[in-house]
Amino acid sequence: MSGDTDSGLSAYLAEVAAGKPVPGGGSVAAVVGALAAALGEMVANLTLGREKYVNVEASLRPLRDRLTALRTSLLDAAAADESAYQSYRDATGLPSTSDREKAVRTDAMQQALITATDVPLGVARSARDVAEILQSVAREGNPHVRSDAALGALLAEAALRGALLNVRGNAAMLTDRELSVTYLTDADRLEEAGREAAQRAYRTAMDASEEGRFR
Amino acid sequence: MSGDTDSGLSAYLAEVAAGKPVPGGGSVAAVVGALAAALGEMVANLTLGREKYVNVEASLRPLRDRLTALRTSLLDAAAADESAYQSYRDATGLPSTSDREKAVRTDAMQQALITATDVPLGVARSARDVAEILQSVAREGNPHVRSDAALGALLAEAALRGALLNVRGNAAMLTDRELSVTYLTDADRLEEAGREAAQRAYRTAMDASEEGRFR
Repeated sequence: MSGDTDSGLSAYLAEVAAGKPVPGGGSVAAVVGALAAALGEMVANLTLGREKYVNVEASLRPLRDRLTALRTSLLDAAAADESAYQSYRDATGLPSTSDREKAVRTDAMQQALITATDVPLGVARSARDVAEILQSVAREGNPHVRSDAALGALLAEAALRGALLNVRGNAAMLTDRELSVTYLTDADRLEEAGREAAQRAYRTAMDASEEGRFR
Repeated sequence: MSGDTDSGLSAYLAEVAAGKPVPGGGSVAAVVGALAAALGEMVANLTLGREKYVNVEASLRPLRDRLTALRTSLLDAAAADESAYQSYRDATGLPSTSDREKAVRTDAMQQALITATDVPLGVARSARDVAEILQSVAREGNPHVRSDAALGALLAEAALRGALLNVRGNAAMLTDRELSVTYLTDADRLEEAGREAAQRAYRTAMDASEEGRFR
């Protein structure tokens, strides 16, 4: 990697490590989902345009493009997670002397919590989508780099589980119980479907992988 | 995160996604291990120096410092993985007309493969170390951010497994069978110990976690 890339990565890691709540797990889960998408794209890009794999060209190209879009939206979600947290902090700072002020503050905090639940829910959905696409990439992609697809599957699963930790934590604090239950039900469904897809993608990659990049 | 950090992260993701074998899974596994260490540091940094957690101060501080060192060495390993691949590519490009040249080339390729196995083996060891430290951080750290320790554990496990994919793939190509078996045995041991530590850290974090960062 280039020096600039290295220092950008290094700066992000230092920001995560620092004693502030953001960027924290919500942001990191999104970044890990983006890394999973990027590994899938790499496998597709090392397959497309090669004579030997011409028969998968038509099916693989749109999957690669979808992974590129997912990578972008996951990186955007990492930033959105930080904004959502800031909105909540801002809401807690509102005046709370009169009953009217207290009601406004409580409402603002609950609205911010809804956003702070929606963002990781979107990350979890994207991670599930990445896992689903990786199944096809692992099956059709260049076998020399299928271990990269396998790592992509492991990372999609970790990103999904990490995002759902935040969905569940934040949804549990909503005073609207009906909305809270809806989020928790969504989380359970996504976890089941996403982990199954990721584990299938991993097995497909491991079964299919011949040789490594060093041949 | 700052604009510079965002563009550095974005540039790294684009480099992974591109149709070149590096940075690939070896580099990404190291970066994910560094993210796991950074999350552990964050939990420690949100615990240290607070009156409420003064009783864990002495045990937590050296663990935090160890995670900082692991984060640095994991990020270095991401770059070293790329260099190792380049050395192998360079070796394959050596002349191979005479028997003498062929022998020199084969030897250079095998030497490069050894480095390309040592680097991910080091990443796997560091990921196991991060997982072991996260057990204590999850137990002693600020309970408001223990879900971040839980994600750290998931990422340490994924980083370990990802690095071992490369150890096994490269070790299998060594002509020195004894050395190859040594690497594979090391990989099996590391996988067992590291995954057990990571799963224990995850369970500890989940059992201990009260409340989220939004309280």
